[in-house]
Amino acid sequence: MSDVTTPKRGRPGYDQAAILEIAVLAFNEYGYDATSMGVLASRLTLSKAAIYHHFSSKEELLQLALDHALGGLEGLLLEPGAATGAAIDRLAHVLRGAVHVLADRLPYVTLLLRVRGNTDVERQALTRRRAFDRAVATLVTAARDEGSLRADIDPAVVTRLLFGMVNSIAEWYRPTGPTDAAHLANDVLAVALNGLRTPA
Amino acid sequence: MSDVTTPKRGRPGYDQAAILEIAVLAFNEYGYDATSMGVLASRLTLSKAAIYHHFSSKEELLQLALDHALGGLEGLLLEPGAATGAAIDRLAHVLRGAVHVLADRLPYVTLLLRVRGNTDVERQALTRRRAFDRAVATLVTAARDEGSLRADIDPAVVTRLLFGMVNSIAEWYRPTGPTDAAHLANDVLAVALNGLRTPA
Repeated sequence: MSDVTTPKRGRPGYDQAAILEIAVLAFNEYGYDATSMGVLASRLTLSKAAIYHHFSSKEELLQLALDHALGGLEGLLLEPGAATGAAIDRLAHVLRGAVHVLADRLPYVTLLLRVRGNTDVERQALTRRRAFDRAVATLVTAARDEGSLRADIDPAVVTRLLFGMVNSIAEWYRPTGPTDAAHLANDVLAVALNGLRTPA
Repeated sequence: MSDVTTPKRGRPGYDQAAILEIAVLAFNEYGYDATSMGVLASRLTLSKAAIYHHFSSKEELLQLALDHALGGLEGLLLEPGAATGAAIDRLAHVLRGAVHVLADRLPYVTLLLRVRGNTDVERQALTRRRAFDRAVATLVTAARDEGSLRADIDPAVVTRLLFGMVNSIAEWYRPTGPTDAAHLANDVLAVALNGLRTPA
């Protein structure tokens, strides 16, 4: 979906990915509308021309950033663990993967979660995000229909609750904190699928 | 915690609670900082003096609104179902109650969830919210220690995940929609405590 890779730290100067990462942090801190290319240039101690060498517009920065978040999520659906096997296992694979995408691409996913649809780029991102949510809801329904999930739940509501839980991680997770993404994914699956109660 | 009651609809004129409700809707729509008393007055088609007859300041409106949200949550902890019995049942009581408080006081809780601590009133609200979260985390720990919850979970992380899930409801729940609060609370408990998986 996107050829943006995680920027390598500690390099002299800025490549495209490093500029994008700093732009995303600024968008999250000040808001996209309030972050002008001039603000970005001064934050990068680059000229605006140097930024325009890599990106045609501020909107292109936004688009690439949202692509990076959405591409990570959409890519999960194409993985073998999400495409074959029992629906319950495919659902678990996608939930676990979504926690890792969130942890690995935290500022990008944070930006995605704040998108409200004010521009074409944002509206396209919302459309892709809804398509991803629908794919997960389809997995929840399939897992219910195969008898793996309780029949008394509403798949649409449960999908919203599951992503409400996963997305809320963006509000407090810090990669340098005590909780690593793998443990976090385990706790999410414990809450979401197996339940917190001790098995009877 | 608060003597603000849900405003009665369809009454002629505005009492204190009705003005507060409309103010909270405006705070949520435009942001607290961007909503002046003049904006409120024109939205209410009242004079500013008529608002000041009920409220000393915009900050008092904010404080009463946050009190209404926090009072609902804090009140749960004082209910018999939260105070006595097995920790797992007390936790379930508080989670179910939190969904009802959110549904019944939706704009107030929405406002609370957006508070970032820019003023003394907001900081006091954040302090109370953290104390509530700590009380729930204590219940999660007690439920784990009594053997009701899995031992391999981190109570602090799980508490955050549970409230991430509950709070996310504010983003999509509408009282007029097809999902009523009681069913929603059931789905939350299904996800949170019993797990979605079919009992073995």
